[in-house]
Amino acid sequence: MNMIEVKARQAVSILKEKNIDMWLTFVRESSAMPDPAIDMVVGQHATWQTAWIICKDGETIAVAGSLDIASIEDNPAYTTVVPYVQGIRESLLDVLKRKKPKKIAINYSTDSVMSDGLTHGMYLLLTSMLEGTPYAKRLVSSQDVISALRGRKTSEEIRHMRKAIKLTLDIYNDVTGYLRPGRTEQDVANFILRRVRKEGVELAWDQDHCPAVFTGPEHAGAHYGPTTRKIQAGHVLNIDFGVKINGYCSDLQRTWYIRRKGETRAPKEVQHGFNVIRDSIRLAADAMKPGMLSWKIDQVARKYITDHGYPEYPHALGHQVGRAAHDGGVGLLPRWERYGKLPYGRIEEGQVFTIEPRLPIEGFGVATIEEIVWVTSDGVKFLSAPQRSLYLV
Amino acid sequence: MNMIEVKARQAVSILKEKNIDMWLTFVRESSAMPDPAIDMVVGQHATWQTAWIICKDGETIAVAGSLDIASIEDNPAYTTVVPYVQGIRESLLDVLKRKKPKKIAINYSTDSVMSDGLTHGMYLLLTSMLEGTPYAKRLVSSQDVISALRGRKTSEEIRHMRKAIKLTLDIYNDVTGYLRPGRTEQDVANFILRRVRKEGVELAWDQDHCPAVFTGPEHAGAHYGPTTRKIQAGHVLNIDFGVKINGYCSDLQRTWYIRRKGETRAPKEVQHGFNVIRDSIRLAADAMKPGMLSWKIDQVARKYITDHGYPEYPHALGHQVGRAAHDGGVGLLPRWERYGKLPYGRIEEGQVFTIEPRLPIEGFGVATIEEIVWVTSDGVKFLSAPQRSLYLV
Repeated sequence: MNMIEVKARQAVSILKEKNIDMWLTFVRESSAMPDPAIDMVVGQHATWQTAWIICKDGETIAVAGSLDIASIEDNPAYTTVVPYVQGIRESLLDVLKRKKPKKIAINYSTDSVMSDGLTHGMYLLLTSMLEGTPYAKRLVSSQDVISALRGRKTSEEIRHMRKAIKLTLDIYNDVTGYLRPGRTEQDVANFILRRVRKEGVELAWDQDHCPAVFTGPEHAGAHYGPTTRKIQAGHVLNIDFGVKINGYCSDLQRTWYIRRKGETRAPKEVQHGFNVIRDSIRLAADAMKPGMLSWKIDQVARKYITDHGYPEYPHALGHQVGRAAHDGGVGLLPRWERYGKLPYGRIEEGQVFTIEPRLPIEGFGVATIEEIVWVTSDGVKFLSAPQRSLYLV
Repeated sequence: MNMIEVKARQAVSILKEKNIDMWLTFVRESSAMPDPAIDMVVGQHATWQTAWIICKDGETIAVAGSLDIASIEDNPAYTTVVPYVQGIRESLLDVLKRKKPKKIAINYSTDSVMSDGLTHGMYLLLTSMLEGTPYAKRLVSSQDVISALRGRKTSEEIRHMRKAIKLTLDIYNDVTGYLRPGRTEQDVANFILRRVRKEGVELAWDQDHCPAVFTGPEHAGAHYGPTTRKIQAGHVLNIDFGVKINGYCSDLQRTWYIRRKGETRAPKEVQHGFNVIRDSIRLAADAMKPGMLSWKIDQVARKYITDHGYPEYPHALGHQVGRAAHDGGVGLLPRWERYGKLPYGRIEEGQVFTIEPRLPIEGFGVATIEEIVWVTSDGVKFLSAPQRSLYLV
């Protein structure tokens, strides 16, 4: 079974658990606007309007345009294939009449990007097709289904992620030997990109800021590409980087210090900032258990950092990782407007999170580490060998 | 000015023409779910909820999360940048209160994929943010704006498209020498892909069916990848293929006939089928003028083909091409349910369309040609040197 089939079967068991009869991924020209569910349980694009349906009873159905049918018939995850020529409405309604779903989950969510693949136009189209049928009032958000499906990693998914994490850490290891004053952020990024190309793997996110490299005080800040800024002695340097192997991502950050002449170690304030970040990660990870509220985990690290006199990090403590670097669903999130209701969600066994606090070290740069942990029945396991000490150059 | 700035300025003049005060592209994690408007008038992704705003008065505004700000400040197309940390609502409302738009276009459309980049969850989020303000009732679809903007090509856009078209035709020219009995559809596709890699350009759509290669009768049909089916004497063979150069696509099909021993030309029925397709394209192109109804152009070719006793093609006559191979908006469309209201739209000067009818030639394969035409003030120009005669192998 390929990964798509495995996840489609897992979806059936999640539909049973959530008591949802049918999960409908409704798309068109999906290579132009790829609903993130496509990557999980479909594995191919189609041009015409297509209904990818997974039922609680285990049946999987694709209702698709005639020109897309040949490639869909090859898809082992969809056993019933219903073609149409002029319009999908009648064929889709026939399927609904046959299956009589009481709840139909569709892909929209105000809070979770990965559960929000249905466009508003397609939503309007779907509701107009269902008008006057009993199904019009049976639509619910698939957020719970998708969050569970993306979150609960199979052992094979964990295996792929371990590979991506290991390669990232290996590359970080080599980077240490490359760093020296005079080299630019872009030089460092190019060093990493050469390694990535040599390994023949993909980047985990857009190359414009993967890797992201930041050296010294007053650098550009997160989500910015590497610049021509030169590494100097006395800089704290960070890299944020990940790869994708067999469709699964890593996303890790590490911190280096570039020693000045005569220094055998980092200045006290640099070491202290690094230690606070390292320890805040450990504390947050120690606190994590299935069932715990998302925001409470963020608060552990956030409070530890502010208790040490540093400003709070202007982002979440962590996010899920999987097929996407930002894999959506519950994260380790503060109760901020932009995160909607997600901070009130609970973490679950099988989920994989980054933990990535940061703090500024005035005059030197930023201390930031990003680790990856996997939620087990009674705590978490680190999938990344954690950075225990500041890397010295 | 880069292409994004050029198109953003063009958008301002279209907003004036359509009397829409503000065009709002509202996105989050746009690399995971890329609203197609991003590619036209934004040119970068952002992680947090971001409002990309173009105003009729020429002001361009980005309201964005603090972590995304540094890279947005580099974007010359957006002159006003408004950062937020915890949530976008207040900053976005401040912008609306300052600009007082009477009509705000947002990206949803039941009919046009390229104008339907707003997800349903983001729509709900936006309307909940606007609740209780006068702006809640001022939202309209941006379909007219986006269709005009994508459709009306600048001379620079046409120049990029000509390059993509020329390279595609050059490669088709070389393909003729490569075709021979015993080679498979996949061999032919690989020959083309090697050329594409050598030229260092991108494919115009997903590699799984770009190029698409079909040989002989009973092949897999459109939108299917090349198979191990072998070319045989007596086959009609088609390829559907395009490249992307400087962000602009080609999308062209050609038809070959593989001669049997002793044949100097194609059998009469093959030649006849090819001629009918070729001539139907010419007739449709001759009929095209700005202001003409979309479905009437489709009908010219459709009727010509059925009048010659062939079944009608099970798809539209053509679609727009541009940054995407299927560039959305008005096409050359039959009045079928799946095309919604688009067949009742009118073609405009500056638009670029494919014309791609097909017909089956029983026992041999399919005759299909795809040309690209550019709508001028009084007709169309072919951007592709049209296939006038059947290519013989």
